[in-house]
Amino acid sequence: MRFAESDITARLAAYAVETQPDDLPNPVRQEALRSLFNIVGCTIGGARHEIVDIADQSLGPFSGPLQATLFARGRRSDGLHATMINCLASSVFSFDDTHEQAVVHPSGPVAAAVLAFAEMRAVTGADLLAAFALGIELECRLAKAISVPPAKGSMAWSGTGITGGFGAAAAVARLMRLDETGMRRALGIALAQAAGFRAMHGTMMTPMMPAQAGQSGFRAALLAERGFTAGQTALEGRYGFLSVFCEQPDLATLAGDLGTRFELLRNTYKPYPCGIVIHPIIDACLQLRRERSISAGAIAKVAIQASPGTMALCNNRNPADEMQAHVSLHHWTAVAFIRGTARIQDMDTETAVKDPALRSFQDKVEATLNPALAGDAAIVTVTLTDGSRHECAILHGIGSASNPMSNGDLERKFVDLSEPVVGPARTRELVDKTWGLPALADAGDLARAAA
Amino acid sequence: MRFAESDITARLAAYAVETQPDDLPNPVRQEALRSLFNIVGCTIGGARHEIVDIADQSLGPFSGPLQATLFARGRRSDGLHATMINCLASSVFSFDDTHEQAVVHPSGPVAAAVLAFAEMRAVTGADLLAAFALGIELECRLAKAISVPPAKGSMAWSGTGITGGFGAAAAVARLMRLDETGMRRALGIALAQAAGFRAMHGTMMTPMMPAQAGQSGFRAALLAERGFTAGQTALEGRYGFLSVFCEQPDLATLAGDLGTRFELLRNTYKPYPCGIVIHPIIDACLQLRRERSISAGAIAKVAIQASPGTMALCNNRNPADEMQAHVSLHHWTAVAFIRGTARIQDMDTETAVKDPALRSFQDKVEATLNPALAGDAAIVTVTLTDGSRHECAILHGIGSASNPMSNGDLERKFVDLSEPVVGPARTRELVDKTWGLPALADAGDLARAAA
Repeated sequence: MRFAESDITARLAAYAVETQPDDLPNPVRQEALRSLFNIVGCTIGGARHEIVDIADQSLGPFSGPLQATLFARGRRSDGLHATMINCLASSVFSFDDTHEQAVVHPSGPVAAAVLAFAEMRAVTGADLLAAFALGIELECRLAKAISVPPAKGSMAWSGTGITGGFGAAAAVARLMRLDETGMRRALGIALAQAAGFRAMHGTMMTPMMPAQAGQSGFRAALLAERGFTAGQTALEGRYGFLSVFCEQPDLATLAGDLGTRFELLRNTYKPYPCGIVIHPIIDACLQLRRERSISAGAIAKVAIQASPGTMALCNNRNPADEMQAHVSLHHWTAVAFIRGTARIQDMDTETAVKDPALRSFQDKVEATLNPALAGDAAIVTVTLTDGSRHECAILHGIGSASNPMSNGDLERKFVDLSEPVVGPARTRELVDKTWGLPALADAGDLARAAA
Repeated sequence: MRFAESDITARLAAYAVETQPDDLPNPVRQEALRSLFNIVGCTIGGARHEIVDIADQSLGPFSGPLQATLFARGRRSDGLHATMINCLASSVFSFDDTHEQAVVHPSGPVAAAVLAFAEMRAVTGADLLAAFALGIELECRLAKAISVPPAKGSMAWSGTGITGGFGAAAAVARLMRLDETGMRRALGIALAQAAGFRAMHGTMMTPMMPAQAGQSGFRAALLAERGFTAGQTALEGRYGFLSVFCEQPDLATLAGDLGTRFELLRNTYKPYPCGIVIHPIIDACLQLRRERSISAGAIAKVAIQASPGTMALCNNRNPADEMQAHVSLHHWTAVAFIRGTARIQDMDTETAVKDPALRSFQDKVEATLNPALAGDAAIVTVTLTDGSRHECAILHGIGSASNPMSNGDLERKFVDLSEPVVGPARTRELVDKTWGLPALADAGDLARAAA
């Protein structure tokens, strides 16, 4: 399709303002709900992580009226602080979601902002979900348009850091019912605060970049609502966002097929809290353990054929702590066979990473390169002490675009994340309330239930 | 001089941590005080501007405990909100300061952050001034290293937006007495939030980008103080700041000659609240009016020879409002001859821009290009109704690096900005307190006096 390159920001703003909830096809609304469900679970699961504690202790003393819930932290704060803290919690395990093509984890910043907003003003569940869907859609379009070929972008930027605020601003401005001019201002203000680069990788700033983006987006909408002005062609204008964040943007991906193509449908959810290239190995190990009734004690050797990406990033035996365990295929192979799981608690530094049984099992694990395998594939061959061999090949790991997490998978993930933090009864209530969001008369009930 | 390219962040952090106030040469401390004096006046002058009102009304409802003064706004807020609002006020007239070579207005973000901090914890005036000087020094070095040849940078970035947080973080982290590791974290966190591009030019976001930078820098120091981690080579590291904000950085300018070369000494202060290329014209008009006793009523014609930059940016007759008056040489020529001034109130939309006397005088003004003139030069020739002609050539306008504002000039500017907002008695007190900062036992007294 063709359109003027000079009205990109205007087109996206008009789309975000004019689209009615019923204009979104049912699969889009369903995927939006799955994205929201997934991120609510991640938020509760990460709520009491040390990184979140430090941020709340550092910045909480500057926060204002008790407008919004800090998920599972037993207190409330102003809506902007809550947005930052809740998004930080949702991102802290790198367990959130990922667009199939663009390197962006879209839900965190948008969800944190709209959920905080819904505690401050009357918003129905259906309106919140539509705003969330449109925010994610714009965010994913922008992230894809500056990074996925034919676009030429830079790997150095934090995709979520520089596009998350755009999505959050769109979603909140829509809930405020700003007109197109207001929406353009909100988008412009958010883009002018887009920030983050990957030299922060592996530090606490990794989840803070999305958190900062979510807060900036919310703030942008608040400023725009009062008439604060910004460049009206913030994306495509001279010296605008596209000119600085990308060598060659893909404008058709960014602003074409609005209302018919939905990048939201390409969102995927991680089943395990670790490097995504380890996932098919875990799938294979768990399948062998379950279907062949293989006990860890009977295993003499585990031979893994791994993709180039897996070997480059995750061939790390004997990690020392949680952050290193994130990227150790040996650790997760041991966890899968010994514990039959691959959960948050399975990378705790004291009770898992340093667990002698897990550490000694890693000596049995050898990974070798199979250059024919894609990143979501692996072949695991187990040799038992009796000499028998068992093999499992995974072509598309659970959670990849070709093998998506089912709603049941998402619910199990939610429960695993939530129960250790808020217990089973509250977890059940939150599961039901989140799945039931579209029918909620007051969407603020969801966040309040997560107190 | 030579140094490893791999320790830029570490070198700058160590410098910011280890330098003692007495290590700063006297001219550096003097220039720091002049920079601070100038920006305090700008902050008071802009404190009640509509743009500041909107930001405070939008974001004030989210602000926290009453830790710091909102200059001349009759209220207090948390220190982070105060930093944003006060920096916004300081930038709103584009009347602040400019490094002679790099396009950065260094004082606003750093001053707002350290002044708010000084109300929260015990800080002496001498320590505040040293921290301010070091923050400005690092900010100007970074801005210059990514934009002034031999560096190859992009004009698209907001220089103050992307470097102001770095300066503010350095200054606040120093006041917190963080060690080198903490300082590196503070700098890294701030850099990962560096943002802003020039598609926002001419909108309310222009002064908001520095304001956002100042707040981000303060926040970065708060996080670092509690142990929040960030990439330790945020500037020079792979996928770091220099790799994304600049095609070819000038590393020697950034990190060479620390303690002997001071970019702070290249800071300049605007004498008039308008495009800097109009300044020599105003100088010439005021000089003719004063020295030749020329009254506006006796003038038949004003012929101006202007530099290429002046003609490109400011050859705009009959502006419609304050923002347009910023860049109209005709308006300021009329103001200079009729009012004998060039102040904030001389660009008020209702009482100045639409003043019939000023508007009709503009018809007598004609500007022509003189390609031999630099941006800080102009030649003004007045023909009187009696046929006599008077000429004044300005080679370096007041406030340019070659003709710096004297302390008396700075004080008159301060008074012009401050008196309409807080009156003459309070202005006198603030002038004295700001000049007297180095001797203040409690630097918080300065901000409190600006309530």
